[in-house]
Amino acid sequence: MSFNTFGRVFRFTTWGESHGPALGAVVDGCPPLLALDEAAIQPWLDKRRPGTSRFTTQRREPDAVRILSGVFEGRTTGTPISLMIENVDQRSKDYGDTAPPYRPGHADYAYDAKYGTRDWRGGGRSSARETAARVAAGAVARLVVPEVSIRAYVVEIGGDRVDPAAFDDAAIDENPFFCPDRAAAARWETLVDEARKAGSSLGAVVECVATGVPAGWGAPLYAKLDSELAAAMMSINAVKGVEIGDGFAAAALRGEDNADPMRPGTDGRPEFLANHAGGIAGGISTGQPVVVRVAFKPTSSILTPVPSVTPGGEAAEAVTKGRHDPCVGIRGAPVVEGMMALVLADQKLLQRAQRG
Amino acid sequence: MSFNTFGRVFRFTTWGESHGPALGAVVDGCPPLLALDEAAIQPWLDKRRPGTSRFTTQRREPDAVRILSGVFEGRTTGTPISLMIENVDQRSKDYGDTAPPYRPGHADYAYDAKYGTRDWRGGGRSSARETAARVAAGAVARLVVPEVSIRAYVVEIGGDRVDPAAFDDAAIDENPFFCPDRAAAARWETLVDEARKAGSSLGAVVECVATGVPAGWGAPLYAKLDSELAAAMMSINAVKGVEIGDGFAAAALRGEDNADPMRPGTDGRPEFLANHAGGIAGGISTGQPVVVRVAFKPTSSILTPVPSVTPGGEAAEAVTKGRHDPCVGIRGAPVVEGMMALVLADQKLLQRAQRG
Amino acid sequence: MSFNTFGRVFRFTTWGESHGPALGAVVDGCPPLLALDEAAIQPWLDKRRPGTSRFTTQRREPDAVRILSGVFEGRTTGTPISLMIENVDQRSKDYGDTAPPYRPGHADYAYDAKYGTRDWRGGGRSSARETAARVAAGAVARLVVPEVSIRAYVVEIGGDRVDPAAFDDAAIDENPFFCPDRAAAARWETLVDEARKAGSSLGAVVECVATGVPAGWGAPLYAKLDSELAAAMMSINAVKGVEIGDGFAAAALRGEDNADPMRPGTDGRPEFLANHAGGIAGGISTGQPVVVRVAFKPTSSILTPVPSVTPGGEAAEAVTKGRHDPCVGIRGAPVVEGMMALVLADQKLLQRAQRG
Amino acid sequence: MSFNTFGRVFRFTTWGESHGPALGAVVDGCPPLLALDEAAIQPWLDKRRPGTSRFTTQRREPDAVRILSGVFEGRTTGTPISLMIENVDQRSKDYGDTAPPYRPGHADYAYDAKYGTRDWRGGGRSSARETAARVAAGAVARLVVPEVSIRAYVVEIGGDRVDPAAFDDAAIDENPFFCPDRAAAARWETLVDEARKAGSSLGAVVECVATGVPAGWGAPLYAKLDSELAAAMMSINAVKGVEIGDGFAAAALRGEDNADPMRPGTDGRPEFLANHAGGIAGGISTGQPVVVRVAFKPTSSILTPVPSVTPGGEAAEAVTKGRHDPCVGIRGAPVVEGMMALVLADQKLLQRAQRG
Repeated sequence: MSFNTFGRVFRFTTWGESHGPALGAVVDGCPPLLALDEAAIQPWLDKRRPGTSRFTTQRREPDAVRILSGVFEGRTTGTPISLMIENVDQRSKDYGDTAPPYRPGHADYAYDAKYGTRDWRGGGRSSARETAARVAAGAVARLVVPEVSIRAYVVEIGGDRVDPAAFDDAAIDENPFFCPDRAAAARWETLVDEARKAGSSLGAVVECVATGVPAGWGAPLYAKLDSELAAAMMSINAVKGVEIGDGFAAAALRGEDNADPMRPGTDGRPEFLANHAGGIAGGISTGQPVVVRVAFKPTSSILTPVPSVTPGGEAAEAVTKGRHDPCVGIRGAPVVEGMMALVLADQKLLQRAQRG
Repeated sequence: MSFNTFGRVFRFTTWGESHGPALGAVVDGCPPLLALDEAAIQPWLDKRRPGTSRFTTQRREPDAVRILSGVFEGRTTGTPISLMIENVDQRSKDYGDTAPPYRPGHADYAYDAKYGTRDWRGGGRSSARETAARVAAGAVARLVVPEVSIRAYVVEIGGDRVDPAAFDDAAIDENPFFCPDRAAAARWETLVDEARKAGSSLGAVVECVATGVPAGWGAPLYAKLDSELAAAMMSINAVKGVEIGDGFAAAALRGEDNADPMRPGTDGRPEFLANHAGGIAGGISTGQPVVVRVAFKPTSSILTPVPSVTPGGEAAEAVTKGRHDPCVGIRGAPVVEGMMALVLADQKLLQRAQRG
Repeated sequence: MSFNTFGRVFRFTTWGESHGPALGAVVDGCPPLLALDEAAIQPWLDKRRPGTSRFTTQRREPDAVRILSGVFEGRTTGTPISLMIENVDQRSKDYGDTAPPYRPGHADYAYDAKYGTRDWRGGGRSSARETAARVAAGAVARLVVPEVSIRAYVVEIGGDRVDPAAFDDAAIDENPFFCPDRAAAARWETLVDEARKAGSSLGAVVECVATGVPAGWGAPLYAKLDSELAAAMMSINAVKGVEIGDGFAAAALRGEDNADPMRPGTDGRPEFLANHAGGIAGGISTGQPVVVRVAFKPTSSILTPVPSVTPGGEAAEAVTKGRHDPCVGIRGAPVVEGMMALVLADQKLLQRAQRG
Repeated sequence: MSFNTFGRVFRFTTWGESHGPALGAVVDGCPPLLALDEAAIQPWLDKRRPGTSRFTTQRREPDAVRILSGVFEGRTTGTPISLMIENVDQRSKDYGDTAPPYRPGHADYAYDAKYGTRDWRGGGRSSARETAARVAAGAVARLVVPEVSIRAYVVEIGGDRVDPAAFDDAAIDENPFFCPDRAAAARWETLVDEARKAGSSLGAVVECVATGVPAGWGAPLYAKLDSELAAAMMSINAVKGVEIGDGFAAAALRGEDNADPMRPGTDGRPEFLANHAGGIAGGISTGQPVVVRVAFKPTSSILTPVPSVTPGGEAAEAVTKGRHDPCVGIRGAPVVEGMMALVLADQKLLQRAQRG
């Protein structure tokens, strides 16, 4: 089935293909009276915009967003907000006239198996271009949770990790990798350049931290905050793993090492002395920073031919044409931020519904 | 908000607390005419039943399921199936008369922050006892996907991993750890015994493989098969990480090493030569085995006192009473299986809706 | 498909058949800390309980509700509330050993066409017995909207209408018809008795008024307050029509006669001088009483044989056995009240989500 | 809350205001491989297009639809279909610079009470212009149910009803009222003209019949076919009542007069000898024509001044400016058709999910 809506009360629906005339999102359930115009959205789109450095795809898209509804005299009205981004630099001719061999790692074969058809130009609906719509929707979501600060950055590329001791928030926006460790950023420049020139690609791990989330957002079971975050992150193209707090590392800890002790805080609330849990216990926020890590596989589009088959069932080599990111995880960071904002906005409104 | 329903067309809703009179699930959207009676559900419940070895909690619950609706003359009718399991061995007196200090790692504080109240006996709604209801619902889901074989097992306890070369499916049911590696199972006996006697606990990683899933189940975006699996698994108590296929390891691979090459298969469909993707591309099954790995943190209930605070805000030490699993991940394996069945049943029906 | 859940954030799921061991509802999304016990639910169930006068079915069901979860120390915890009502007086032998001819007006044939099977004892899932679960859930919903007063009564039986000028709220609970007009109640006694003795049945119209609903509940489009009410009421067994305010009569009015003029009210809010709209404009409550009218067809179970066919396709006469209400609309009144409460509780929480 | 999505697996989401730059719908869950282009949608939009006769608003909108996604090489791909209609003839200056007095009968006050703001130009989101998006989505839905023929027509204007004996399907498209009775159409010309010239307005009743719906679509309870239809119809602007089959008239019948007898049919299925039920029993289609009737109140926009208040709370007279339909029910007929198609498409896919 096709399900292109996410969220429970703060919801968004995206539409559009890589090589269609436009793509967009409809944001529904947004509270009224929030100041919103295109200028409030554009900076976030610019962060994930392609073609800004040699480390991203050379497709040139201005990614200029238009607000088509839901805003009156500069403020949200509570009615659906339609956001549209026109595709400008499609260059569909890269993709020829007939469906090429299935590209391994891509969704090509799976789409055909599911739908019996697909728009094969640039990945069609499965293209990471769709994430522009999420980032636009995420920018609206941020307005709903002004008390929260959301920060995503890349902590690993091609297996090379940042040094936690070298973490510098200011560094994140100073390099094309959203890397918080200047030394790692320098190493990655070489690493990604090498992969790019070799026609290869690299995976990455993005970490996202939300501070200012009050205790009490989430739900005990099937809309747990961590469950919603897992769904949100795993819905991003190329993502293969999600962990909260210590994640897989927690599986190697003993109970006493994984506990987050508490003491009475100065504000009457408990103060936590550790955050192995990543700010979520029993599916509900604890008031500590919410920490999620997301694994991106290497971009499936590579210049190295890979054995494959055609839609007609013939053996063939898949050779990537078109323009692609050598490391899709880099531009994944602003997308992860957007999804975090979208989940938190939804959970805030849900908590408000239940507790007033 | 409280959301206790999972699924889109094949849905289930669970209810019940650790120390209430009963717990249960309502399964809705199940196709009619499937053979179903209690005997078809009970074996799966027995797999996760507590008290079956010294490596699990000593709470003695028969976990006998009753079908209260939705079945007529031994077959499902298409109407909601109400499943109920009575709690027998609650022993609430372990929990005293007043709410104890918040147990670090547990949801105690988060629940109070969210709801302003909670049933603090045995974790109340946040108890892993709720997973019995999922396993029961999962047993119904299995009937919907008879073409699929689902197998979960533990691949790591306390940081000690199985040897993939020693994998023996037959071993899984021969030891109390659902461990496919006999040598590892022997080591774990010592490991878990030590932790249990020390009043400590251990984390674990569960792997689940579904074979027989045809290509084409899933959805391109927000109900992606992997996204649904991530939500499902992360909704299980104590889970902190989920990965599909190579997962986080894929982030360290190059594109050419992560590609799953194809060649024409004998049945007219592509044959894959690798399965880094874990059977899912672009959110849609490829026909290969669907592989998911789930990280369970160590049980938060430990005998070592941990600094904490009382609901009233006083400093206190949290000391676990009650009976608990030294490694909650072990009994997590049948729960992971159940959730896999529930997600696949839903996706099968959704695909049928769209393609007939 | 089978969809047995209603509501968006305040949701309930019902289960159970006429002749199964029990039926019930799971209420999810209920705010915490509301005082709730069985005694708060039972009076509403008693209002729709069968066998209380000769004008309802003679099936004797105590309809005693049990709360199985979601309540701790007399208050809701915010987790799912499981309500169960045991069936006591099933008398399935009235229904024989094999599926009888399809009863015209009943869902028998439609169920078989849909599901290929059905529990044919007493209507199975399509029995109006399911409405007991709704009434129980509705009793919980009332706790969520204490500012609202909900009153349903019967305004027409067998085409004989009450006189609006004779409306007396006190009369409603004094006669077995929930009739606000004492003279009409007296006439109906004769009317319903005659139909009952003749083995026939009568239709009815129920009106329900909710006062105290503040302006602002509802939504502009697909979750309009009137749209939700229409869905809720039409989901009740035997209902064939729903109208809001003047309803069908409004279609015969001119614009100036249908307008509800306003003037400044003493509390700073507009005061309405008429209520043709039934308290809803553009899908949103106006602060006036919410008025809905619901048409119940005559009970389909009658003693007069009706030409029909058997499940095997043979011509046959359908002869109703079993015990039935001569006018199902009478016991529909408490069900309509329950559904009104359920819709309003949901809308209140939704409004709170969006506006805080 | 704002809920602008309708449907369960075949879903659509609408957006846009009367005086914004555009409005649209995103259709999700549509099966792939259906032939679709703008020309397949436009004729249905043209039926409800304003300005086509003197009996509708004089706003001149071409209502030209653009398909922005979800179609490749002339066929649906199974991914979301984004439909956009630009607003051309807004003439916002009719509405001045400040919010006018609340127009009685309109949603003006309710919106302000709900949202604390509104786009007051032309009714903003509450304008019947939104129904263009539904009609466009409905045109897509028709492709999903080619076996069904859907026909809506006006059976009453200003209290003047058509003569059932004079019903002529061919007449419906020959007059500007979608009236199946030529004599009534002639009377209505005078009637509506008089109202229009007097600055008044009239209500109407629309009937819609769907033939070719197989037995078995629907659900036993909260997604009953009739319940979904009631929600769908009541969500249309100005609708105050919905009935299925005999509807309110059934409430005045005796059981034996309301029964729809059956006999064995030539195709092995039962043949019905009457259709009081309007093709739906127990929420499930019976294979007979599905019949729904929808009451539209008179257009609230009238030239007669009506006492009201300003948003600031001052007494004022509401005087309608802008251009409006003298009888909004007329253009309601194509909207009712569209909603019928949307509900049936959803139910067909749901039935397919459950039965394959």
